[in-house]
Amino acid sequence: MPQIQNVNELLERTQFLIGDALSAVEATYATELASKNPFVRDIYQHTSRFRGKRLRPILCLMTAKACGEIKREHEILAAVVEMIHTATLVHDDVLDDANVRRHVATVNVRWNNQTSVLYGDFLFTHAYHLASQTESAEACRIIGHATNLVCEGELTQIRNRGNLNLTEAEYFSIIDGKTAELCAVSCLLGAKFSGACEETIKRLENFGRLLGKAFQIADDVLDLIGLESNVGKTLGTDLFQQKMTLPVIRLLEETSGNERQQLLELLEAGTEEAGREIIRRAREANVINAAIEYAHQLAIEAQHELQVLPDSPAKDVLLKLPVLSIDRAC
Amino acid sequence: MPQIQNVNELLERTQFLIGDALSAVEATYATELASKNPFVRDIYQHTSRFRGKRLRPILCLMTAKACGEIKREHEILAAVVEMIHTATLVHDDVLDDANVRRHVATVNVRWNNQTSVLYGDFLFTHAYHLASQTESAEACRIIGHATNLVCEGELTQIRNRGNLNLTEAEYFSIIDGKTAELCAVSCLLGAKFSGACEETIKRLENFGRLLGKAFQIADDVLDLIGLESNVGKTLGTDLFQQKMTLPVIRLLEETSGNERQQLLELLEAGTEEAGREIIRRAREANVINAAIEYAHQLAIEAQHELQVLPDSPAKDVLLKLPVLSIDRAC
Repeated sequence: MPQIQNVNELLERTQFLIGDALSAVEATYATELASKNPFVRDIYQHTSRFRGKRLRPILCLMTAKACGEIKREHEILAAVVEMIHTATLVHDDVLDDANVRRHVATVNVRWNNQTSVLYGDFLFTHAYHLASQTESAEACRIIGHATNLVCEGELTQIRNRGNLNLTEAEYFSIIDGKTAELCAVSCLLGAKFSGACEETIKRLENFGRLLGKAFQIADDVLDLIGLESNVGKTLGTDLFQQKMTLPVIRLLEETSGNERQQLLELLEAGTEEAGREIIRRAREANVINAAIEYAHQLAIEAQHELQVLPDSPAKDVLLKLPVLSIDRAC
Repeated sequence: MPQIQNVNELLERTQFLIGDALSAVEATYATELASKNPFVRDIYQHTSRFRGKRLRPILCLMTAKACGEIKREHEILAAVVEMIHTATLVHDDVLDDANVRRHVATVNVRWNNQTSVLYGDFLFTHAYHLASQTESAEACRIIGHATNLVCEGELTQIRNRGNLNLTEAEYFSIIDGKTAELCAVSCLLGAKFSGACEETIKRLENFGRLLGKAFQIADDVLDLIGLESNVGKTLGTDLFQQKMTLPVIRLLEETSGNERQQLLELLEAGTEEAGREIIRRAREANVINAAIEYAHQLAIEAQHELQVLPDSPAKDVLLKLPVLSIDRAC
């Protein structure tokens, strides 16, 4: 087949592998959030336009397929991780004071911050309620534990806004919680509920974690260098909010003396002009390419984890996912 | 024993009934939220000062005792409902832009709104994670369902801020979700995990629901007439935010013509002076006393539901709880 350019294309071409499972996930998602309340229905309709490539449900279903058969539990749990992901997006848009997501006004802009806070809560509670439909307290525990770590990662991130001395280790600990954990648990659940052995479950969990880290690094690079009109969400927010990301951390590491002092002043300025100058210096120091390269390295490591799986079409899809999910940023 | 004045006093005098269960609930609560992250520990320490009379854990433990024996599940689930309650308080303080809770600065004031949103999420996810420790997907489902309704009630409330035409029926539907549901589920879980029959579970659930409604009406009256220094939280916020509560809804219902028009203007003004005038008119029309009386009526109905229980010291405590939990407002 010709070269696949992005996750959506990969999915279109390989959807036959997971049959109606993705439609079942969508139906499960919609049924769980169905409400008699017209206001809740309005927000649901609005936020359904935020949803993108369904990366986490696909991770869950494809790992399930690569390890055995897709069961009803997988469909439920894939909907759960997607719902938790959407909840974090809705709350993130409040934290970031963002205006646009996927070319659509955020909930905080369309309604207000209060509605965003409560609708995020609504999505969280429905996610846990849905998880309990699997009749497995273990699934609830695994998901609860993962979301605990997601929240802790987000709290650490908010605490470190404005901390220009954030280290690489601290940055990785933040993205491990806020992004990689949910990708990891999607794969873990896929493998576990297909009856995979402990070793396979562990490796697939790590596959998801590496993929998630690679994706977040690429997403952070995109925020730094991208243009609002192309990506459909508010960009440059990391810089303006003094949220340190990999290229900027490395740029600071590699800069000293007067130049470093200038850079710190540019970071503190928080203007568009300062932002452009930071990007110029980052390009000059090659830290943007280096960050993308590091994301690719993690993607390759992720692929290696899949050696534990027998060859199959689903495995082939999984092999392509890490690189595809970061490539949109390059 | 001499007349008991409030829930705290009742608890002190009757704690022997539930033995170490309440301490076990506290320990379970603390263990679940323990974190290596110093920032999370700081917020935990700070918010532990918000916590008051532990009404919901007591409802769970006392219904358990009145129906049979207190088990480990009860201690876990009592900690879960308390954690969910605290999560809603933390988020409510963002929604209300409140400064003070239990004489302590709110999280949004001590840190910022972002921290409040994320710490509320952190409490929610830990609550669900803790619920899954019971090894019962049913407990997770019951709690998830209850929290779904809590969030829907809160969303309906936020939607109706500024809706001066809110009906009594709409008001009751809101407080049923946002307050009564969690009290109801606390009692339901207490009875269910003691092995009570379906009829008893249903009646105790309704006991909790009626108590919760009565409590919320009284709390709304307190917000209207109370003074900040006495109660330890920001008051009068309902009026300033055009959140309609029972006395004001009734006052509007009973007023017509020019006087009604004046009242609507006072409600829209949102000043302290307008607030005082509304309270004066409410007192004159006797709607404040009528609301308190209605809360008492619900408390009596709640007591009636307890007829299903055999006589016991725990039942005696439950009988006293509805009136005591509203009396602080009178």
